[in-house]
Amino acid sequence: MSKSALVILAQGAEEMETVITVDMLRRGGVTVTLAGLDSNAPVLCSRQVTLVPDKSLTDALAENPQFDAVILPGGLEGSDRLSKSSIVGTLLKDHEKNGRIVAAICAAPTAFVAHGIAKGKKLTSYPTTKDKISGDYTYVEGERVVVDDNIVTSRGPGTAYWFGLKLIEMLTGKEKADQVEKGMIISGY
Amino acid sequence: MSKSALVILAQGAEEMETVITVDMLRRGGVTVTLAGLDSNAPVLCSRQVTLVPDKSLTDALAENPQFDAVILPGGLEGSDRLSKSSIVGTLLKDHEKNGRIVAAICAAPTAFVAHGIAKGKKLTSYPTTKDKISGDYTYVEGERVVVDDNIVTSRGPGTAYWFGLKLIEMLTGKEKADQVEKGMIISGY
Ligand SMILES: [Cu+]
Repeated sequence: MSKSALVILAQGAEEMETVITVDMLRRGGVTVTLAGLDSNAPVLCSRQVTLVPDKSLTDALAENPQFDAVILPGGLEGSDRLSKSSIVGTLLKDHEKNGRIVAAICAAPTAFVAHGIAKGKKLTSYPTTKDKISGDYTYVEGERVVVDDNIVTSRGPGTAYWFGLKLIEMLTGKEKADQVEKGMIISGY
Repeated sequence: MSKSALVILAQGAEEMETVITVDMLRRGGVTVTLAGLDSNAPVLCSRQVTLVPDKSLTDALAENPQFDAVILPGGLEGSDRLSKSSIVGTLLKDHEKNGRIVAAICAAPTAFVAHGIAKGKKLTSYPTTKDKISGDYTYVEGERVVVDDNIVTSRGPGTAYWFGLKLIEMLTGKEKADQVEKGMIISGY
């Protein structure tokens, strides 16, 4: 059975981080559900692109309570909404406890802090959100993607290709990630 | 007045190429219209992400017949639909004649060939579509983005960041492009 990933879409999410992640994981053979935080209605993102979720988060979790990965796109407003959502908090804690992949990019690692997730782990995030990653974390600045056990974080829209590749590698293997990289023509220039 | 760009969204378009381009140009201060080829209804893209256009192409052109740039995202099915559209053909010819920017990424440069646009110019495209760029063109393989006068082409989803940066540079200047690159954290790793 193919691996499954849940990408949670909140109003004000960074649209390219969202779409790059969903698209790349699907290229990598992962079954991805793009779930609307509040409903299945279209979601206005940070640069006024409107994305239609596959279903609501509630429906997604009713159908599959245990995705292999839960992924949070960034965007300041989107990350703030993810930080304030109790359903997201419960889901992240549950996934962490079960050792499944929990990933966030850009401003979204602040939602880990808000929900008390990933304590003691190495994290990165969008540079201007660094001061919000306070407490029991080791902040990493020199890498596009940081992996610590099951916790995956990345820095911004311009690192989203490598965030996607790392998640493909962790879910379906390095060979598949290399295929996707080649098919997208990320490297070699 | 800020520069304007029209991104034409057809069913089966490559969603990350579409969204990266729109998002980046908006970060660069360009007024972007994402126009649905057939209507203003939501459009299902190549990896099953659904995007909502800002308006239909007909309405977009009624409001602004002369955008500073017309941009075609790739995706095989999307590019094929753009290649077969007479409204797109008329628009491209008109823009070329007026010396305005005409840009395409991935499979979309095949629409230039279909509509007899950019003859005599240097072009690039997604590698597997190279044999469709036949006739009076100079095909370039070693660069992420190729500019020949007002014609801008790029290779695939993995070169979309640099396609966006080049378009920002041409529309609003190198300084703005550098700001966007820095804000997105594309380089430096
Ligand atoms: Cu962000």
